[in-house]
Amino acid sequence: MMGSALSYPLKDNGNEVRIVGTCLDDDIVTALISSRYHPKMKRYLPEGIKYYYYKDIQEAITGTEYIIGGVSSYGIEWFSENVLPIIPDEIPILSVTKGLVPEKDGELITIPEYYKRRLSVISPDKKLSLNAIGGPCTSYELCDRNQTYVAFCGEDIDILDRFKAIMQTAYYHIRTTTDVNGIECAVAMKNAYALAVSLAIGMGNKRDGKEAPEHYNSEAALFAQSVREMKRLIAYMNGGEDSLIFGAGDLYVTIFGGRTRKIGTLLGEGMSFSDAMDTLSGVTLESVSITRSCTKALMEASKHGKIDLDSFPLLMHVRSIIEDGAAPCPPWDDFH
Amino acid sequence: MMGSALSYPLKDNGNEVRIVGTCLDDDIVTALISSRYHPKMKRYLPEGIKYYYYKDIQEAITGTEYIIGGVSSYGIEWFSENVLPIIPDEIPILSVTKGLVPEKDGELITIPEYYKRRLSVISPDKKLSLNAIGGPCTSYELCDRNQTYVAFCGEDIDILDRFKAIMQTAYYHIRTTTDVNGIECAVAMKNAYALAVSLAIGMGNKRDGKEAPEHYNSEAALFAQSVREMKRLIAYMNGGEDSLIFGAGDLYVTIFGGRTRKIGTLLGEGMSFSDAMDTLSGVTLESVSITRSCTKALMEASKHGKIDLDSFPLLMHVRSIIEDGAAPCPPWDDFH
Repeated sequence: MMGSALSYPLKDNGNEVRIVGTCLDDDIVTALISSRYHPKMKRYLPEGIKYYYYKDIQEAITGTEYIIGGVSSYGIEWFSENVLPIIPDEIPILSVTKGLVPEKDGELITIPEYYKRRLSVISPDKKLSLNAIGGPCTSYELCDRNQTYVAFCGEDIDILDRFKAIMQTAYYHIRTTTDVNGIECAVAMKNAYALAVSLAIGMGNKRDGKEAPEHYNSEAALFAQSVREMKRLIAYMNGGEDSLIFGAGDLYVTIFGGRTRKIGTLLGEGMSFSDAMDTLSGVTLESVSITRSCTKALMEASKHGKIDLDSFPLLMHVRSIIEDGAAPCPPWDDFH
Repeated sequence: MMGSALSYPLKDNGNEVRIVGTCLDDDIVTALISSRYHPKMKRYLPEGIKYYYYKDIQEAITGTEYIIGGVSSYGIEWFSENVLPIIPDEIPILSVTKGLVPEKDGELITIPEYYKRRLSVISPDKKLSLNAIGGPCTSYELCDRNQTYVAFCGEDIDILDRFKAIMQTAYYHIRTTTDVNGIECAVAMKNAYALAVSLAIGMGNKRDGKEAPEHYNSEAALFAQSVREMKRLIAYMNGGEDSLIFGAGDLYVTIFGGRTRKIGTLLGEGMSFSDAMDTLSGVTLESVSITRSCTKALMEASKHGKIDLDSFPLLMHVRSIIEDGAAPCPPWDDFH
């Protein structure tokens, strides 16, 4: 969805745009070819885009100057094995995939770093420029051309500035930064923490009924603790300080604009994790994926004395709800 | 309102509570005496509270162990001249007033510091313990016993812990900290920045109609820039880093739970400041007050080379809307 939504600023700037579906997206591509309508995003894409089925990916790549990678975090292994190796080194890549990958000894790495490590095994000679987008942006609103401010991160600021030059519009504002670890940590973790903040919505529903006002005091307390723990995670990954700011904005938009709110609310109402997953079947839940991968890494890091799990009471609480069926009420007095 | 709302955790903990109105609150006191109903907060206060008109303040003070000061920022001069001098030194004070006071050369001081400086002139021999509350909490929700997490700040952690001992409940969670400047800066500035974020609601209404979905991308971008500028302001006041976290939570709740959202939305829709003030007549607008006092100090500090006004593009934009009738659209590309 985000990959498709980026066609708005790209087309508004007069670029030629080609969209290639993954092997799971043939129905979406067919719909886009016939009517420009994206059935999952429920928006029409701009006119003049050329659409390709996955089988024609080589044709789509040929002659392009830039590539945006839009798979979900569940698709990164597939993407690194099937797509990255056929991209010429001179075409820089901008990834919108949000996630962190746990490595041995509790190390957490970004998606660009994961791609780099996978490529070094699959195609050791390749030297791709792997960049990423972070910051608050829902695909729906980008299609609506709502004012949006994001960060592009990567190792080479000149390449980022080239992406910015073709993508920045009067409504899509871009900051470039080399703080890949900070931005990507914030971008990934905001999904887990948006689930945590949404627990307060569900707990409010449970106590006062769904028609009653939201408990903003409670949401704000969970929001603050989320920012506090994200700050520690960014530091653990050696990220920069300003990236927390993008993380706070990203968390904000995810609580209100995204799918994560739904599962957090259901869990906050006291529904079991498996029932909540059944209720939301078919929805990609990055929040669950990142909670699992991050806490797995943290628990491993804790064994090696690299971090103290007590620094993440809210994240570990979300893990307990998902994995152990814990009750939704957060451990307020463990917050610090 | 917040002073009255704090009677909930206090009474739930079995404390004796006395509430004294200011000289402007006689009608509220009369209503509370007759029915326990607070007409501005639209909530009943707990049973068993004793209410006093301002003329009987001396009687109310006599025999108390703690005092909570609940005037608005417009009442701090009155409070320091009329109330503080008659409080015995051994009774510690906890202030809920949110604001910063501009001093000479661009210095910004907290309300407790303002009280201390005023007292040193009015009653030089007094040695009051002046503490304050910060962090996300609306009075309405505190009366509803919603889960809430706040910070008590002051110079003496033992006194703060005494306040915590009598006030913490299963729903009102308290952290104590000596970072008065950080907490009080965050608490005050969140009002100005909640107005800034609410501009996006109004701009969305103007473009798409009031029934259309909110522009969360835009709100999140303004939220992130707000946190960034609040971080700089806390640093300018030599506040601690963790206080920004309370500020982010406080900003969150103020956008959704407070009156500031109304004026920000009206200004975002393009209404002039004077018309917006007329529309909201009778509402205490801390957001306007703090924007004026803080930007006044910053402009003075800038003249003395102490800060760079370019570090606060969003706050200065809000000032321009209020003082110069500037259009609501924020200077997105000045954000950094």
